[in-house]
Amino acid sequence: MKRLIENLSIVTMEKSDQPVITGSIAIENDVLVGVGSVPDGFEPDEIINGSGQLALPGLINAHTHMAMSLLRNYADDMPLMSWLSDKIWPVEAGLTPNDVYLGTMLSIAEMIRTGCTTFNDMYFEMEEVAKAVEQSGVRATLGRGMIGNDREGLEKLANTRTLFKDWHGKADGRIRVSVAPHAPYTCSDGFILKSIDLAKELGTEIHIHLSESIDEVSESLEKYKMTPIQKMEQLGMFKLKTNAAHCVHLYDQDFEILKAHDVSVLYNPSSNMKLGNGFASIKRMLDQGINVALGTDGASSNNNINMFEEMHLCALVNKGITGDPTALPAYKALEIATINGAKALGIDDLTGSLKIGKKADLILMDLNKPHLCPQYDLIAMLVYSAAASDVKSVMVDGRFLMRDYVIETFDEKNIMESANKAAHALINRTQKG
Amino acid sequence: MKRLIENLSIVTMEKSDQPVITGSIAIENDVLVGVGSVPDGFEPDEIINGSGQLALPGLINAHTHMAMSLLRNYADDMPLMSWLSDKIWPVEAGLTPNDVYLGTMLSIAEMIRTGCTTFNDMYFEMEEVAKAVEQSGVRATLGRGMIGNDREGLEKLANTRTLFKDWHGKADGRIRVSVAPHAPYTCSDGFILKSIDLAKELGTEIHIHLSESIDEVSESLEKYKMTPIQKMEQLGMFKLKTNAAHCVHLYDQDFEILKAHDVSVLYNPSSNMKLGNGFASIKRMLDQGINVALGTDGASSNNNINMFEEMHLCALVNKGITGDPTALPAYKALEIATINGAKALGIDDLTGSLKIGKKADLILMDLNKPHLCPQYDLIAMLVYSAAASDVKSVMVDGRFLMRDYVIETFDEKNIMESANKAAHALINRTQKG
Repeated sequence: MKRLIENLSIVTMEKSDQPVITGSIAIENDVLVGVGSVPDGFEPDEIINGSGQLALPGLINAHTHMAMSLLRNYADDMPLMSWLSDKIWPVEAGLTPNDVYLGTMLSIAEMIRTGCTTFNDMYFEMEEVAKAVEQSGVRATLGRGMIGNDREGLEKLANTRTLFKDWHGKADGRIRVSVAPHAPYTCSDGFILKSIDLAKELGTEIHIHLSESIDEVSESLEKYKMTPIQKMEQLGMFKLKTNAAHCVHLYDQDFEILKAHDVSVLYNPSSNMKLGNGFASIKRMLDQGINVALGTDGASSNNNINMFEEMHLCALVNKGITGDPTALPAYKALEIATINGAKALGIDDLTGSLKIGKKADLILMDLNKPHLCPQYDLIAMLVYSAAASDVKSVMVDGRFLMRDYVIETFDEKNIMESANKAAHALINRTQKG
Repeated sequence: MKRLIENLSIVTMEKSDQPVITGSIAIENDVLVGVGSVPDGFEPDEIINGSGQLALPGLINAHTHMAMSLLRNYADDMPLMSWLSDKIWPVEAGLTPNDVYLGTMLSIAEMIRTGCTTFNDMYFEMEEVAKAVEQSGVRATLGRGMIGNDREGLEKLANTRTLFKDWHGKADGRIRVSVAPHAPYTCSDGFILKSIDLAKELGTEIHIHLSESIDEVSESLEKYKMTPIQKMEQLGMFKLKTNAAHCVHLYDQDFEILKAHDVSVLYNPSSNMKLGNGFASIKRMLDQGINVALGTDGASSNNNINMFEEMHLCALVNKGITGDPTALPAYKALEIATINGAKALGIDDLTGSLKIGKKADLILMDLNKPHLCPQYDLIAMLVYSAAASDVKSVMVDGRFLMRDYVIETFDEKNIMESANKAAHALINRTQKG
């Protein structure tokens, strides 16, 4: 199948000195064969008129818990510990495999509609998540979230090994599997060491929560005289490729450790604010050369998985906390939401920018909206003015997942109805006891 | 004309202990005659099926400069003073009356699509803004932004008097006129005193920028040994109803002054962050009983006028800066975006909540979206999950301005084309010299 999308604005995320080009995009099966210009002798099976549209690499949601959409707006505006122990954990304990499947499919519908093509998940019943990825056509890295100590949780390591064997590289290579110990405060040192060994054995990266709340960091300092990041370095985690979600409360040395070991930070501005954890120092991380990617966290602490919103917040909030209107300019926010996510997940050879030879993972935005008028700087427009609802079409591996606002790979209405029903049954079931 | 909207969820903003009811809304001409239930003997000319929808009072944008949409995405990520003096001011100096008309109409299209029914504007060529309000059907309070000293700017006071005479109470009462001295650092004391006298004479409120940047407050303290707020109190401004935009950098005494004189704060979270001014202490204002309303500021420092986004930011950012996930709960954010705005503008007898006898200023939201599924707490849903693009229909004074996503009171496409053309001509004209 050869497709040509003609006459549109293209933000490649390959050239910061020429961020927007005008021209065509040529796609052969799953691969980009022309970006801006058409290769000689290219004879398309389909020509798509792209006028009034803009192409951008699909956004990459670098940290989420997709199935938590079932708990969206179920409990909010609460103190962190009672929110977790009275509301979230009892419900999560009652989640069935089918609930996880439906919650993930619901989030995939939202993710496609909001211009995201790849997500990095940490949850459980991950076989169900893998099935949802396979069916819907998106790209994902899946980690079985593991809480454990030297006696308990060992079956989760085995579970991760099985998940890797069954799903890593599957769905035409769209699925990858990571090793995901939940956090230093929920895993013993011994369990963390076993997780590191497993990641080494499988040759895959680690996905973990680090330094999210001030309490977590204080307790670590009190118990171990080390920050969570210092502790993980000492255990040898960062000798392997590691993606660390949050990193809100860092000490000077933490920044140096993250940089020295090429740890990617997965930044979640909405969730960090909503749970009262505060603001990660993103400008400092970027100044020190740390790779920062962007995520939504789960929908129960956000309460959506809208990457345009996170990108917008990323640019705004970091100007607010530094008092500097030049901090985190629009192009940088776009990098964080696209190519930096691909680098974190080790798939920047496949996706994260529009470049000949990479997979055709892209979104088309409809620019015919009053809030996108007039058109001067399209990069500022994407970050400061655009909304997720401007995303008109979404393609992964050269296949349209959404075309002209219609999701093509599954029955969205049916998923919404089933998810809504399952969610209410889940709450009734778990809140009874 | 009698209309009945049946079988929908209704957020009245009248009862915090029963925030959501289910039922019907009955409208006779421009007035709400039934909210929840239908009055006896009501015989509608039209019955609208509201199932799957939610009604909410139209949002109130309490501080904006509508015509600045023409400068959207023209200059961003710059230091404040070079942004203003090299980019914004030279272009503004070249704005024609027709530019102001087109920029305002463009913003009105955006405002309607994003669920806002009333705006509080400060700009110039305000007769053009008034015409746009009259034509489009929205509600507005208009202030001629005035910079002046004892010799210059006096014609702007005369201009405000004429604007008041020609437009206050016009367009079926949808237009009100305020007195709008720009700020303490751009107006002399004598000019401020004349502005206060004029507001007293006209019996209308004052709209002013106060304590937006740290430099403004430092300079005021250095020159006068008073904060801008202390200074305005001393000049007697707050004996009149006053709406103060921004109030980001306050001293303890400032909070007390604002409360003692019932000054409303017009909070602009996006603009304050984007320009590097920081974070207003909204939780403290609310705890001290100050009326806080919400605005977008102009589109050139935002870069849109999306009140759903501001409402979302209001709830999130204030949890972030206080470190408290219970700070600024969802219902409070909704109040700030609706009824508090009406109180600031002195029109809470007309709008800002859905109550029998008030004007039918309301929006209908389509809940059939994946990011609004499942449905538990609809208040949390509106603030944390909903997007402006979920707004399906908008009514002001009982008249549909937008119905099923189509703007009915003017030709939106034509306005976008004309505004885009005018904006590019303006930049070419003003950047040549």
